[in-house]
Parts: sequence; structure tokens; C-alpha cells
Amino acid sequence: MRLIPLGGLGEIGKNMMVIEYGDDIMIIDCGLMFPEEDMPGIDLVIPDISYLLERKDKIRGIVITHGHEDHIGALPYILPQLDAPIYCAPLPHGLITVKLKEARVHASNKVHETKAGDVIKLGVFSVEFVAMCHSIPDAAGLIIRTPVGTIVHSGDFKLDYTPVDGKTCDLSRLAQIGSEGVLLLLADSTHVEIPGYTPSEKVVGETISAVMSNAPGRVIVTTFASLVARIQQVMDAAVKYNRRIFIAGRSMSEIVKMALRLGYLKAPDGLIGELSEMNRLPPNRVALITTGSQGEPTSALVRIANGEHREVQIKKDDTIIISASPIPGNESVVSKTIDSLFKLGAQVFYDRVAKVHVHGHASQEELRLLQSLIRPQYFVPVHGEYRHLKLHSQLAEQMGVAKENIFTLEDGDILELSPQGGKIVGHAPASNVYVDGISVGDINGVVLRNRKMLAQDGIVVAIVTLDAESGHLVVRPDIVSRGFVDPDTGKALIESSRDLVVKMFDTETQYVADSAVISNKVRDLLAKYYYEKTRRRPMVLPVLVTV
Amino acid sequence: MRLIPLGGLGEIGKNMMVIEYGDDIMIIDCGLMFPEEDMPGIDLVIPDISYLLERKDKIRGIVITHGHEDHIGALPYILPQLDAPIYCAPLPHGLITVKLKEARVHASNKVHETKAGDVIKLGVFSVEFVAMCHSIPDAAGLIIRTPVGTIVHSGDFKLDYTPVDGKTCDLSRLAQIGSEGVLLLLADSTHVEIPGYTPSEKVVGETISAVMSNAPGRVIVTTFASLVARIQQVMDAAVKYNRRIFIAGRSMSEIVKMALRLGYLKAPDGLIGELSEMNRLPPNRVALITTGSQGEPTSALVRIANGEHREVQIKKDDTIIISASPIPGNESVVSKTIDSLFKLGAQVFYDRVAKVHVHGHASQEELRLLQSLIRPQYFVPVHGEYRHLKLHSQLAEQMGVAKENIFTLEDGDILELSPQGGKIVGHAPASNVYVDGISVGDINGVVLRNRKMLAQDGIVVAIVTLDAESGHLVVRPDIVSRGFVDPDTGKALIESSRDLVVKMFDTETQYVADSAVISNKVRDLLAKYYYEKTRRRPMVLPVLVTV
Repeated sequence: MRLIPLGGLGEIGKNMMVIEYGDDIMIIDCGLMFPEEDMPGIDLVIPDISYLLERKDKIRGIVITHGHEDHIGALPYILPQLDAPIYCAPLPHGLITVKLKEARVHASNKVHETKAGDVIKLGVFSVEFVAMCHSIPDAAGLIIRTPVGTIVHSGDFKLDYTPVDGKTCDLSRLAQIGSEGVLLLLADSTHVEIPGYTPSEKVVGETISAVMSNAPGRVIVTTFASLVARIQQVMDAAVKYNRRIFIAGRSMSEIVKMALRLGYLKAPDGLIGELSEMNRLPPNRVALITTGSQGEPTSALVRIANGEHREVQIKKDDTIIISASPIPGNESVVSKTIDSLFKLGAQVFYDRVAKVHVHGHASQEELRLLQSLIRPQYFVPVHGEYRHLKLHSQLAEQMGVAKENIFTLEDGDILELSPQGGKIVGHAPASNVYVDGISVGDINGVVLRNRKMLAQDGIVVAIVTLDAESGHLVVRPDIVSRGFVDPDTGKALIESSRDLVVKMFDTETQYVADSAVISNKVRDLLAKYYYEKTRRRPMVLPVLVTV
Repeated sequence: MRLIPLGGLGEIGKNMMVIEYGDDIMIIDCGLMFPEEDMPGIDLVIPDISYLLERKDKIRGIVITHGHEDHIGALPYILPQLDAPIYCAPLPHGLITVKLKEARVHASNKVHETKAGDVIKLGVFSVEFVAMCHSIPDAAGLIIRTPVGTIVHSGDFKLDYTPVDGKTCDLSRLAQIGSEGVLLLLADSTHVEIPGYTPSEKVVGETISAVMSNAPGRVIVTTFASLVARIQQVMDAAVKYNRRIFIAGRSMSEIVKMALRLGYLKAPDGLIGELSEMNRLPPNRVALITTGSQGEPTSALVRIANGEHREVQIKKDDTIIISASPIPGNESVVSKTIDSLFKLGAQVFYDRVAKVHVHGHASQEELRLLQSLIRPQYFVPVHGEYRHLKLHSQLAEQMGVAKENIFTLEDGDILELSPQGGKIVGHAPASNVYVDGISVGDINGVVLRNRKMLAQDGIVVAIVTLDAESGHLVVRPDIVSRGFVDPDTGKALIESSRDLVVKMFDTETQYVADSAVISNKVRDLLAKYYYEKTRRRPMVLPVLVTV
């Protein structure tokens, strides 16, 4: 049996996990990542599926653990290439259906709804869905029966004993499977750095409730649209303190509608009002739920913070709860949003100063509990960057898994596994596939390197018009720059560099060189001159016109 | 009396604080900030000193609280413009002298050494230096006597009762001044979000000691070069566990040398060895101190992690201590360095998993203690982003400062203050002054906007050669792109856009338009076409050549 983690931008096996036995392949999740700082202009990053494309006819299906973007978001890009059935719980089913429709991928008939306890057959594999808790409803772990033994995949999870919807992790089922004997455990490593237990979602409800009871004016809560339990707690507090709920932001409105329809959210009739009616109520009767917890520039909260929202303007007695942590990379935009809200006179509660957020991933003691229930022969940590996997491996070793039976993989590693032993036998292609605009995969290292270079010191274009016969300059060369120097203060520098090119041709007109040679000479001359004068290295692009 | 915070990139009054009374101006600190993500290519950001340049002859001196870059780093850029004497403790004196020499600013004779308890006269002001604890030796608070009352400035500080060098904050002096009556307190807000007390530096020594006693091989510690107390603790642990100390990284070597010479570091003879000799010792006799705690690309640790260091290669039994927290913005590069070290087989201890770092700033209870000692009439929070100042203002109000006597300023705000009341009376210029290469202040919003646009989707240059008389195209237009599409896969798109330009001139040759009009037409045509085909918006730069 082969196990291959794919995608994830350094979070191993996060977006996609491939399991292969003989002529059968099953895929776990199909998600995307948002670009890192050193990927300017890139919209999304999706897994490299070259390995799968070469084995298309082996693929029996895609199993989805839960409905977060990093587990379902690549489906619109990948499904048209793979044409496999998808199996998932009702909420991810709803989210995937919308997503495929928006992307005009006609594959809804391939998305099959499952529920906890269901077992599906995918070639030699049979897959059972197990209820797990996470920061979105309908999260699942997987029990996968294979010809060589049982695999348990935790999915993204935490052990919340008092979840808002009452649906706890099915620890009994996991314990039962553990006692039957498990070949391999794959478990979520995201929060392995954190000692103890992740607090229950309930803790946040208490904070929201306290803030809402004390707030003199409106209470504005921002969180992830998919964090349905959080939204439920805001609604419950609003009912308790006699406030009406209003929603701002498209994705929040849509998910709330879907969650109400599918029964994941419960709200008494008349609780939710139209945003346009909000200002008719006294402020202390209002609770507003918005998008924007990550400081997204076009989100409702950021537009509110910048004074650019049509319906919501911040007033002195407003209280804002940022009920989320910044995802790494978003810290500074979130901080700026908080600063702006304070400047407008609001009181702001955020994760560093109040218990307004808990995470959706298991901490160390929860991971130890999982190990002790499953007692696997092999362990492969997943869903984390390399240091997380390494720490999770050390934790598993402490819990009794033999050191040689623990595999800290990287994306693309092909792990061959049987009850007799495991070994990395090769590497599947696992580069980042960039989505930029409507194209997928055409952006490569050269384009990104150029973008980064352009961002550093800008560009200088030198237009050199030469007489085809004599090789003489026809006119004084034109030099245009963008992002290099200020057009006014840099004028003298640009002019003197034009003189320099003129001089070069004055002294070298005796031969008509190859145009590539001339271009290189102009580039080197200008690059050197600009560096001497400014210590900057703009991209220099000579353009030769021969007439 | 006027108080004006300047510089700091959103951290108010961090880099510079101006105090003005009648014909006298004194300046506190003269630091720089490192650029944020949305400032591509910028090397440094320094305060805008337009207000000071207009009042040059009033300036009596610059007082330095401590030797960190954000408090002294702008001196080489600003001193040549202001020509004022500088007063500071021995360590900042040493650091500033080196800095000015490296920048070839001949002003060392203007730097005057002071020590705790010294009082200097700056026009109507007299300034007393008070010993404070911070993450660098010789940190000072200031007691400033003015004609309208006493100002206390905390500087960057924490209340360490067991500092490594034994030099605690002079709380008695502060209490004494407090009981005499203080008009205004300016206090460090950096860690106002954190409840309780900041732990003593000593805590880290215990961790370092424990790691060093258990490590099977070499111990490599990285920290800030200026965190002399940390380096002392590494040396003490090395002595205890019979390891020799080696140093990698230029700035670390230099500061260690200076600190040894000035007596801030104490090491027995023979403890410190030459890096070239390190590999001759058994690994468990080695402790290596390096730069690179912030993941700086050219630092020793990052080169070691990337396998690019000439003298240090990671071996399986190496233990690495990242004895620092990532400064906001550096999280991802630090994480990648940790991942690389784990991949090479080392064990890594870092701030999220071990007590390997404590901060240098006061937490809430320390700030409350300061308030209770000083009991100021007015309070102005400094050294923090706006939300920190706001929270610090709320803390001061809880401690008894009247709400109307608390001023949450922004950089450039001019606060007019007397015992009768305070008011913001105007705004001094306080924009970011960018240093890029050797030029200071010539980069403006347009240049940065262009750089950001270039980074997003690259640039397309279209060279259109026209006959001066007829306005006809002389040759098929040439189109060159960088950072827009892959040169190979994007070839067809570029070719079809050349056709488009040819077609435009075919249908419009009846008139010879103004060249600006033609340029705009070409730009709009191409921008629209590329967006339709790719959903990207490269910068389009038409170049018209008429022959």
C-alpha cells in the first residue's frame, strides 16, 4: 500500500492525501492554500496532481473530511481533470455544490452525501465516516479498511466535550477500532506545540454573552463565516439580551442562510433583520455579525473600519468583538483594522486581550488521548509544517509507537507500507501549482522571480533606435522608468543616463554588432550606472528598434 | 510646553519625541523602523523631521534612552541635518560611535557619555537619567524638569527584580519623584495587552542551562546581538557544563567584543574560541552563539539551516535554541528556518515550545506599579500601535488619572500642555521617510504604488514605431513582458496582442493623432485584451518611436 501526501504549501498532506493499493486509488480531501508573501500576484495555490493524472483510471473516489477551503477549495480546478465521485457530509456537500456551480463546473451529480457511521466502498478500500469536532459542523474522521490493515485518519479535529451543537467526537467508535488493531494512524498536527487541552467552544459563548450584556450600544461580531457554532452563540446571546441580529458581508449572509436551511443554525422567527432596517433600532438592541476577521480588504468589517461601508458607520458606544485569531501572514492587516476601529471611538475586544476565540485543533493532551485510544502500529503525522510533524512524531514515540514505525513525510514522498514494514520508495511531483486569474499552472519560478525583482527596485526601459545600415543612433535614446525613482526628483538621473548611452554609441559606431550584444551592453552600462548612483538594482530592459 | 511624537510606522513616539518650550527644543531618541510588507524595496524608514528643520536653532540636544536600532538607528541620516549634541549611556555611546563611523558621519565629538543619576542641562530643560531594565544593558528612563513641571519618560522598560547584571530599575528614585509631583508621564505601551508580570531574564537562563546539560552534541543558540544578558547566560551555562563558546555572525562577534571590552560581558580567559577551531573539539564541548533569530537571509543561522555556511554544518545530535520571538512580519521566515533545521536532523527549541525567551517590556501589573509610583497629572502612552495606546490609556484611567488628562496621540500631533490643561493644537508633518539605497526621502507614494502594481501582474512594454509623416506603422509592433505570463506558454497571447495593435493602426491610419492619444489608445486596447484573456492587470507601457 502506498501513501502520498500532496499540496499544502509546507503543511504536509493538508490539502490532499492519496492512498493506493494495487489498481485502486482513493483521495482524501482536495483543498487549496492562499499564497505566501513571496508569491506576488498569485490568487491561490493548489496541489500538483501529476501523479494522479498518470493513474486516472485507478481513481475510485474523493473523500472529504470537512468543508474548509483548504480541504475542498481545489475541487473546481481539479475535478474537471480527474472526474471522480466525491463523498462527504451534508454541510460540505452544500458548500461544494455552491462552489462548483459558481465555477461553472457541472459535476454536482458526482457529489454524494454521507453521514457519520456510513461506510462506502472505493475499490479495495472501505471508508467509514466518524463524527469529529472542529471549527465547522460535520467534520469527519475516517476509518479506512485496506487489504493490509486499518487506517485511521483524524481529519482536522479537537476533543470538545461541550460543543455548541452537542455533537461530540465519537470516541467510543475510535476506541473500538483501536482495540481491534490499527495499522496506521494519520493525525492532525496543527496545534502540537500547545500543551494541555484546547478549550471548548463554550468558553467563547460566555465572553460574547458578557460583552453583550454590558455593551452600552451596538455589538459587532466578526468571525469566520464557516464557524457556525460561533454564529449560533452570538444569536443565542442576542436572544438573551434582547438584541436583533443583522448580517453584513456576502459570504456570511450566504452561509447563515444555508446553515439555517440545513438546520445547523437555530434562530427564533424575527431574530434576524434586514441590514437596511438596523439603524431604526436603538443601538443597544442591535447585534451585527460581519465578515472581515482576517482583515480582508473588501470585507464588511474592513470597509466599516475605513468608513467606507454604506450601511454601517462606527459610533462612539459601539463594541466590536474580533472573534478569531489572525491566520499567519494576516497579523498586520488585522492589527491595522483594530487600530482604525479604536480611532473611530469603538471599544474592541480581540484575541490578545479577551477570550473571544478558541481554535479548532487538538492540543498535546488530546493528541495523546488519540494515540492511547488507537495504539497504531505505524504513525504518520499530517496537517502541519515540518516542525509540527517532527514534534508530533516525538509525542507518538513517547506514547509507545516504535521509532522506526513513525514516518515524518514531506509532500510528494511515496511511503510504501505493509504490516512487515514501511519505506519511502520514491517521490511524486509536488510543486506548487499557482492559480493567477483564470489560468492554472502557467505561472512558474521565472515569472515570480521577475515580479519580486520588479517590486524591489522597479524597471527601466531604454529605447534605442538605430539605423539598420550604419548602426548609428537615429534619435537620442528614450528612457522610461516605473517604480525606480520619483519622476520629478529622478529626472536628472534619467537624463544623465541617456547621455551615457549616446556616448556609448559615439565611441562604438565603428561596427554594427549583433542586436543581442548591443542590448547586453546597454543593459550592463545602465545597471552599473544606476547602482553606482542609487545603490538600487532596477530591472533594465533595453529595447532596440532598427529602422 | 509642546510635546510632539514623530516616526515609528504606527508605533507612536517610538523613534522620536520632541519637547518644546519657548526657544528650546529637546529630542528624545532618534531611531528607525524596518519597512512593512507594503513597502517593497525600501531599506529603512526614518522620522519626518520637517518640524525640527524649521526650528533648527532651537534644538539643544538629543537624549538617547537605549541602544536599540529603533531608538538610535536614524542618527546617521538625521544628525548631518540637525547638528545637535547627543547624550547617552556608555553602551549606546559605543554603538552610536560605530554606527556614525560606518556611515562616515563625522560627529563622534558630539556624542556625550552619561550615566544613571547624571543631570544635563538642555536650555530650559534639565534631564536626569534613571536606571531601567530592558533587553539591552544601560537602558534609561528620563526625569525632565521643565518650567511647567516634571516629565517622567519610562523609556522601553520592564521591572526585572533579578536581572542578569544585577542592575534593577531605580524604583526608589521614581517613587521619590512621584511624591514630589509629576506633571506628565510618558510610558512604554508595547506589552499592555499582556496580563500579569513579564518574567525575569533569569527564567531563560534556567532553560538554557537545562538544555546544555542534556544535549548530546553541540548546542547552538541564536538571539539578538544586543541582548547581552542572554549571551552572558549562554556563557555561564557553557562554563558550568564544560563547553567552549564560539561565535558566528559579524554583528554578534562585534557586539560581544565591545561588551567584553566595556565590561558588560564577563567570560573567563579561554572560554571563547576561534570558529575555525570549533570542529576540533568533541561536539558536547561546544556551544555556538549565532545571529539569525529573525530568519534574516544572510545571517549565520539561516546560512547554517540552508547548508550554506562554510564552517558550520548541522549534524544529527545538534541542539538549537532560538532564544527570541519573531518580530511581527518575520514569523514565516523564522518558521522556515526552524523547519529546515529539523529536516537536517537537529532538535530545535523555540519560543512556542520552550521557555527560551522573555520580552523586554512591562506587562499590565508593571505598568500599574509605575502609575502608582508616579501618580502623574497627565498621561501620554507611547511606544505602541494605536490599540496599545488606547488600552494603556484605559489602564491609566483605572489607576486614577482623570480621563480628560489622558492624551492618546498619533505621530505628528502637537500637544500643548500646562498645569491648567492640555490640548492638541496642530499637526507636524509626520509621513514615512523612506531610505532606499543611498537616497533618503526621494521615494514617494507613486513609486511604491508602481512597485506594488509591478509585483502583482508584471509589466508589458509595447514598442510602436510610426512614420513621422504618415502616422503609419513602420514595422510590426514589438511586445515584451516581464512577470506577466510565462515566456513559452504566453507566447501565443503576446503574438495575438501584436496583431491587435496592427489592426488598430490599419483602421485608424487616416489621421496622425497626438502621441499621448495614441499611447493611451494602445494602453487601453492591450490592458482590456490581457484582462479578458487572463484576468490579470499587468502594467502596460506603450513606447512610441517616430522616425
